[in-house]
Amino acid sequence: MSFEFEIIHKEKNTNARLGILKTPHGEIHTPVFMPVGTQATVKTLSTEELKENNTEIILSNTYHLYLRPGHKIIQDMGGLHRFMHWDRPILTDSGGFQIFSMNELAKGSRKQPTYSFASPKVTEEGVTFQSHLNGSRHLMTPEKSIEIQEALGADIIMNFDEPVSYPATYEHTLTSMNMTTQWALRCKKAHKRGDQTLFGIVQGGMFKDLREKSTMDLIDIGFDGYALGGLSVGEPKEIMFEIIEHSTPFLPEDKPRYLMGVGTPEDLIHSIIMGIDMFDCVMPTRNARNGCLFTNNGKVLIKNAQYLKDERPIDLKCHCYTCKNYSRAYLRHLFIAEEILALRLNTIHNIHYYNKIIARVREAILHDNLEEL
Amino acid sequence: MSFEFEIIHKEKNTNARLGILKTPHGEIHTPVFMPVGTQATVKTLSTEELKENNTEIILSNTYHLYLRPGHKIIQDMGGLHRFMHWDRPILTDSGGFQIFSMNELAKGSRKQPTYSFASPKVTEEGVTFQSHLNGSRHLMTPEKSIEIQEALGADIIMNFDEPVSYPATYEHTLTSMNMTTQWALRCKKAHKRGDQTLFGIVQGGMFKDLREKSTMDLIDIGFDGYALGGLSVGEPKEIMFEIIEHSTPFLPEDKPRYLMGVGTPEDLIHSIIMGIDMFDCVMPTRNARNGCLFTNNGKVLIKNAQYLKDERPIDLKCHCYTCKNYSRAYLRHLFIAEEILALRLNTIHNIHYYNKIIARVREAILHDNLEEL
Repeated sequence: MSFEFEIIHKEKNTNARLGILKTPHGEIHTPVFMPVGTQATVKTLSTEELKENNTEIILSNTYHLYLRPGHKIIQDMGGLHRFMHWDRPILTDSGGFQIFSMNELAKGSRKQPTYSFASPKVTEEGVTFQSHLNGSRHLMTPEKSIEIQEALGADIIMNFDEPVSYPATYEHTLTSMNMTTQWALRCKKAHKRGDQTLFGIVQGGMFKDLREKSTMDLIDIGFDGYALGGLSVGEPKEIMFEIIEHSTPFLPEDKPRYLMGVGTPEDLIHSIIMGIDMFDCVMPTRNARNGCLFTNNGKVLIKNAQYLKDERPIDLKCHCYTCKNYSRAYLRHLFIAEEILALRLNTIHNIHYYNKIIARVREAILHDNLEEL
Repeated sequence: MSFEFEIIHKEKNTNARLGILKTPHGEIHTPVFMPVGTQATVKTLSTEELKENNTEIILSNTYHLYLRPGHKIIQDMGGLHRFMHWDRPILTDSGGFQIFSMNELAKGSRKQPTYSFASPKVTEEGVTFQSHLNGSRHLMTPEKSIEIQEALGADIIMNFDEPVSYPATYEHTLTSMNMTTQWALRCKKAHKRGDQTLFGIVQGGMFKDLREKSTMDLIDIGFDGYALGGLSVGEPKEIMFEIIEHSTPFLPEDKPRYLMGVGTPEDLIHSIIMGIDMFDCVMPTRNARNGCLFTNNGKVLIKNAQYLKDERPIDLKCHCYTCKNYSRAYLRHLFIAEEILALRLNTIHNIHYYNKIIARVREAILHDNLEEL
């Protein structure tokens, strides 16, 4: 068996768990944070830098790689791992979320598209959408999403879902949730590769009964892991945490639980306490490129004038490459001068920070003192 | 004595020389190529990557660092070496060339300046110019250039010169050359730091007698090295090589000879044959960022469709990090997708290529078979 999820410790005072997820490309220690490598690269970083900063698994995007360079090309090049020179586990998202959000992005893009944009059209068969790159029309179906994800060859792949935006009516959310269930069934049926594991994505918007129903439907189909989708889409944080708190107990104990697209370091800790095992988010990487750096004493906006002559590293307690070798003054200079190295040094720091937080959380779970942290 | 230049071998069939230049930050083996780190960073690369790819010395720019972040800040941060985390030798250009060329750049910039631009104004005192960043007015004098370069703390610094554009009249070139000589004298007088060595810059445009005169004038003042300035400024290659061939014999045998701003790998080899020891050029780094890669079989324009499915590295014979780990297909994908990692992987390759060429030239000089190469 290539895949195995073992819970090695349950924290006494919370629902937090410590686990090991075995994959063909190595073990993942949960809770885990997955940096986002949308286009087969975690922006600005080499894969060696990801490893040096304790990254065990990355996420990449079916939607983007299908459109460019094309999943068949990546397959011909030996699969995504070889293509991008990363020999540790990869998870690919199914494309559902991106089809909807990238269309929004393209509409609001600085680069005005030269073609008119139709909203994605959902039928039982799948979703018809336009590429955000050139406006070309495509049909994505559950079977197609699985075909692409099998070609890419990630270790963990996701079922093709229909996320709903926030706010959404009960009726719309119900219809969409049922569609997701049907599609999940078709994904499960279509999936053949034995060296990949397929996760189901729970939908149901902000309605607890629909979340419950979605979870039960997916458990009936049977997946190797379960994700909470459709959260962190604009709803207030309290609602998000209410939904997580309500949903997690319905998820099987013995399968990994993945909260998609979340979040701040605090969000991660709160969710781990509720029993979540896996996370992905662009926050550390995107913030880094915007000059926003996470530290143990709050955020550092590196462009600020106060750092002009600041000899200190970003974070005195940090042991990342950036903090070991560069002053805030230098990082500010690079950022203001629009030097590419700025984006990379910032990204190294933020990824290191996220992975360090998660490592401390794992340590705390092991010693049953997570709430102190 | 911190500085020492020793010629360890002269090639039998050409004027090429093998030398060692000792500096407070280590030895430089000449002939040497200096990657350009205009704003205290060789664009896209870490200093570790520069070392891994056999870079012994880099060039940085007085003009840029004076305007941003300011030489005093760099001095307060412990000097340029510490600021940018580079412990090998640095050479700083004096700012003369940049004052004139950056003004041209700003005038033709995509980002239209919001202020009107006056051309730099030369008087005996120095040059009045506007910052390309914000149009602010500054006076650069020989003394000021030395003050800035002493604050930055490079190992090798350059005298402040007045380059002439191409084409230029004999009269204009003569006036400008005499100004350069006067300024060179003032630079020599102003320079106090004992752990820095000062090079003179020969001007004289495309006129052989003026080149000769400029050289003699500078030798009279006495410098630790001599540079040929004002070349590769738009003149035909034949003229450039004629001037180099004519000028080099007048330069002292026992001092390093530096050809500024040149050039292609072929230009380097031709010039080494004529007795040049040092080079700097943005060509490998800028071309890399434009997707133009140097190989033993000619240039690879990585965006071309022919590389879409090309599993081979950029250059089968290359041992750089990029060629060891990535296919042309992946590099093309990154470049087309405008991923920052593309620029970095390309730059690593081109810097490695340049330094490898120079290493082979040094080997050939040692074995007296440079002409075969």
